[in-house]
Amino acid sequence: MDIRTDLAIELFGNLSSSIEGVSLKEKKLLYNLVVNEVNVENEAGSKHIGKPVGKYITITSEDVKTRDLDIQKYTAKIFAEEIKKMIKSHLNKDLFSTLVIGLGNKNMTADALGNKVCDKLIVTRHIYDMIKNQFSHSLNNMSAIAPQVLGVTGIETFDVIEGIVKNTKPDLVIIVDSLASQKTGRIATTFQISDSGIIPGSGLNNPRMELSKKTLNVPVISIGVPLVVYARTISFDVMQSLFKKANAGVLSDDRVDEILNECVKETVGDLVVTPKDIDVIVNDCAYILAVGVNLAIHNKLDIDEVISYIH
Amino acid sequence: MDIRTDLAIELFGNLSSSIEGVSLKEKKLLYNLVVNEVNVENEAGSKHIGKPVGKYITITSEDVKTRDLDIQKYTAKIFAEEIKKMIKSHLNKDLFSTLVIGLGNKNMTADALGNKVCDKLIVTRHIYDMIKNQFSHSLNNMSAIAPQVLGVTGIETFDVIEGIVKNTKPDLVIIVDSLASQKTGRIATTFQISDSGIIPGSGLNNPRMELSKKTLNVPVISIGVPLVVYARTISFDVMQSLFKKANAGVLSDDRVDEILNECVKETVGDLVVTPKDIDVIVNDCAYILAVGVNLAIHNKLDIDEVISYIH
Amino acid sequence: MDIRTDLAIELFGNLSSSIEGVSLKEKKLLYNLVVNEVNVENEAGSKHIGKPVGKYITITSEDVKTRDLDIQKYTAKIFAEEIKKMIKSHLNKDLFSTLVIGLGNKNMTADALGNKVCDKLIVTRHIYDMIKNQFSHSLNNMSAIAPQVLGVTGIETFDVIEGIVKNTKPDLVIIVDSLASQKTGRIATTFQISDSGIIPGSGLNNPRMELSKKTLNVPVISIGVPLVVYARTISFDVMQSLFKKANAGVLSDDRVDEILNECVKETVGDLVVTPKDIDVIVNDCAYILAVGVNLAIHNKLDIDEVISYIH
Amino acid sequence: MDIRTDLAIELFGNLSSSIEGVSLKEKKLLYNLVVNEVNVENEAGSKHIGKPVGKYITITSEDVKTRDLDIQKYTAKIFAEEIKKMIKSHLNKDLFSTLVIGLGNKNMTADALGNKVCDKLIVTRHIYDMIKNQFSHSLNNMSAIAPQVLGVTGIETFDVIEGIVKNTKPDLVIIVDSLASQKTGRIATTFQISDSGIIPGSGLNNPRMELSKKTLNVPVISIGVPLVVYARTISFDVMQSLFKKANAGVLSDDRVDEILNECVKETVGDLVVTPKDIDVIVNDCAYILAVGVNLAIHNKLDIDEVISYIH
Repeated sequence: MDIRTDLAIELFGNLSSSIEGVSLKEKKLLYNLVVNEVNVENEAGSKHIGKPVGKYITITSEDVKTRDLDIQKYTAKIFAEEIKKMIKSHLNKDLFSTLVIGLGNKNMTADALGNKVCDKLIVTRHIYDMIKNQFSHSLNNMSAIAPQVLGVTGIETFDVIEGIVKNTKPDLVIIVDSLASQKTGRIATTFQISDSGIIPGSGLNNPRMELSKKTLNVPVISIGVPLVVYARTISFDVMQSLFKKANAGVLSDDRVDEILNECVKETVGDLVVTPKDIDVIVNDCAYILAVGVNLAIHNKLDIDEVISYIH
Repeated sequence: MDIRTDLAIELFGNLSSSIEGVSLKEKKLLYNLVVNEVNVENEAGSKHIGKPVGKYITITSEDVKTRDLDIQKYTAKIFAEEIKKMIKSHLNKDLFSTLVIGLGNKNMTADALGNKVCDKLIVTRHIYDMIKNQFSHSLNNMSAIAPQVLGVTGIETFDVIEGIVKNTKPDLVIIVDSLASQKTGRIATTFQISDSGIIPGSGLNNPRMELSKKTLNVPVISIGVPLVVYARTISFDVMQSLFKKANAGVLSDDRVDEILNECVKETVGDLVVTPKDIDVIVNDCAYILAVGVNLAIHNKLDIDEVISYIH
Repeated sequence: MDIRTDLAIELFGNLSSSIEGVSLKEKKLLYNLVVNEVNVENEAGSKHIGKPVGKYITITSEDVKTRDLDIQKYTAKIFAEEIKKMIKSHLNKDLFSTLVIGLGNKNMTADALGNKVCDKLIVTRHIYDMIKNQFSHSLNNMSAIAPQVLGVTGIETFDVIEGIVKNTKPDLVIIVDSLASQKTGRIATTFQISDSGIIPGSGLNNPRMELSKKTLNVPVISIGVPLVVYARTISFDVMQSLFKKANAGVLSDDRVDEILNECVKETVGDLVVTPKDIDVIVNDCAYILAVGVNLAIHNKLDIDEVISYIH
Repeated sequence: MDIRTDLAIELFGNLSSSIEGVSLKEKKLLYNLVVNEVNVENEAGSKHIGKPVGKYITITSEDVKTRDLDIQKYTAKIFAEEIKKMIKSHLNKDLFSTLVIGLGNKNMTADALGNKVCDKLIVTRHIYDMIKNQFSHSLNNMSAIAPQVLGVTGIETFDVIEGIVKNTKPDLVIIVDSLASQKTGRIATTFQISDSGIIPGSGLNNPRMELSKKTLNVPVISIGVPLVVYARTISFDVMQSLFKKANAGVLSDDRVDEILNECVKETVGDLVVTPKDIDVIVNDCAYILAVGVNLAIHNKLDIDEVISYIH
């Protein structure tokens, strides 16, 4: 069954614990935060897990959902630290310029994450020559764009971004996008950072359209939060739970899978599932991500300065 | 199992065909449009079907989804005719003033229907004295408001609307809202018109908050389109289909229902399901509804004039 | 000549310094902030100055325009203190409920101030019963609404607000609106607080439509920032400066005024003047006002907590 | 004095009627529409008039302001015809692909024209292979993008557009932008079409940033409507009228100009002037422009089909 997820950690979890070419680390922090690192080391690992070679960090905590301001700030800080580590593994410079790209459709609540993050970034590229010598030398060079989607422009996201990267020559690209997970419990509680590149929705089935170090010739870091689950996945969840309870052992496992696949295709098609209060949830996640990115890039600011700036 | 639907026709369909106090009529039109009228005639009927006494018209066609402009215009026309009939059954006047209320949360794509309809109405109340004698006498007196939601204002929708009705004294109130259905196939293909009043999301569990003839002292007509399905409903769909295929006759029907209820509560909670392209779908439905309401109220305009006006 | 201004301080400045029934106080603070209090004590004063009886506080500083975050925070604090004093002069309670009303047209950049302030308020009325006993007891009871404008709804603002006040019974109403000043130098550098009520744009020439203690039966505090100047005013400025330089003493002052009036009417009509970067300016002013109102009402929070909350 | 205008016709009007290298044609149509063609034929003409070599068509009518739907449709049709003629003078093909670029800041009411036009275009590029053979073969290949402004992204508009043109290879680029005029009477009553290219606000003082045939290597047609007047211009208007009335012949013309320049600089700086109801005006102009562009490109559709499509 085709269960779509953008989270490497979920794919890892579905497999037996030891996979060739894939390693997993875990650390536990305050407020029940868990940081996992899935490292897809080579093509063998990539084939097993179904994700490109690269590092996938996830920061997870159920407690983020409580909307407690201290937990939000703490999560943003940890998020910033993990981004900084990943940047350091790709760039030797202290001073570097960053282009942030907010993907997604701002007219769809759950898909507006990238747009909302870009709205809260401290963009300086156009005034950088002015500020770098005078005051505010605590700010680095950042630009940010949230391209409109293919359905609105008729233009693939890649075709918008590629020229901007060529013309503005950033040292680093950060891509922000809403993700899909397998489990509804992951929605808005998991934050992923990865260096493996991303294929925007508009470029699906077209490998030329990948946004990655290979296609853009600069390091690309993707960040995101799962905000939807495909309905076919959720139905599968329910049914698994159902079969357990019903002890429907009269059918073989293969027959069960076959039945599930048929049912799901017939009944749910291309539907997505979101929490009822997704508007509030997206805003909170965009805030955490934006504070995190600002802290990671404008790394001489402290978190209260960042929050004041992005009012 | 608590399966939420705002469509009377779905409740009727779940019951045996002949119910005391409830009657059903059906007519078939062009483009596979079907018009159903569920008439909940008395308290007995109301109890059976779980909806207040009143008329519930539904206009349904799979073909609306093709986005064909002719079908959209035809649907809007039929919709306008049904609204006009319902107005006539409540008002004896030829000239009357109408207040349209767009419910819902404009920050949630699937819940923004009421807001989007209000944006496309030909509002005249503030200039009515000027236009009624001079030119444009083809326009009637219409006002329209889309109140912000409880989560944003801290104020129940009823408390906003009640004073406006008292102060502006319209002869008729039309309420527009996104609906929930049981079947995903109903999303954006069914248009409901009813005179039974509505309880806004912000007033749930509080009967004082109902928007109806009883509370507002003018006829109230509610219109809407289903744009979401509750995930617990859709999971139920899948599971029903599953049990049929699996011939899981080893369990009694009651035991099955019990299991389903438990599973669904555990796995899906308060999630809603929408199509992936809900932004486009909401815009199309808002267009059809707005053209319909404008045609029904400004009844001397033809449909092309209405479409020109609401650019 | 009819020079429109919403700032009492400007009217005072146009008159000779000592006017019967009008008094003026001034104090100087950090960052070049000046706080003025114009007190229109009685009907005689009201007639002289052309503003209703009441107190008009203005907080003014050129330095706010530098966008320095410390100055913005300091201005917000002083603003909150002045609001608190004015509340105290009208209410004897420590615990009270507040309804904030954001006037203006969100589709006009310079007129969107009221809407933008409401977006940044910590609204609690709908959850107040829950939070008052448990945690977060530092928050008071606040609701906030930004009614759509007459041109969109066909409904006068007063007719929307009056019912809400009757139904929700706040102890205090705070009204936020963009103001017009006489001098372009006042734009975004002056913050006014007054207890004299306000007539929304939609109610001009209709005294029934005033939002004040008299019509709403609760204390009403109006706050605002000048963001536009009427073009006829600005032309007048230019011409005054011109006549001085040209030593145009050949004409009597009365003849000059007459000429100016004619010219202005012919050439500028109903035009308004704004700075080119008004979008950034409105956002900054909305931030200062919102932080100020939140601090004044939720008076157990400190300013950094407020800023974190309203992300 | 530096009087900024984007309208070639205004510059022409300021000069004596016969200028070397510049020619003017005029035709009169229904509804008081006047079509003027200013042809800047060579560098000599360009120097005289202060605009690049190229054709500048203006369609002007006071009556457009009445908001009469028939006049709006007629204006859109004439506008489409003039665009078609200009396309034909640059392209020999019947079938061609078009990229429309909406410039301006969507957060500034008067500057949002380009964004609003893009919202109403029938974009087909992403589905063109599908529709060109099957049905809807009346639609041509169109894409459309409204890039965010420099102050938001930190990226010059040119750097966004140049790569898109390279990657998507349109046969034609159409640029839409709000213009500035000298006379407030021109606001929303004049529609300009030109083939001379445009320098976006973000590229001022940087000739590399011009969007034109020279920099993009495809024909570029710019369209726009004046929606603002710079305050220094309007003050100049008032003062000219003033000096006439006052018979201020005591001063030489040169001295008058000198005084005016000084006054204006001191008093108005970088302020812009717009009508009070600019939100309604921008929407009407965007509608006329969008209908015009759709008609010119999707040239097998009639105007009622276009209006239906863009709901």
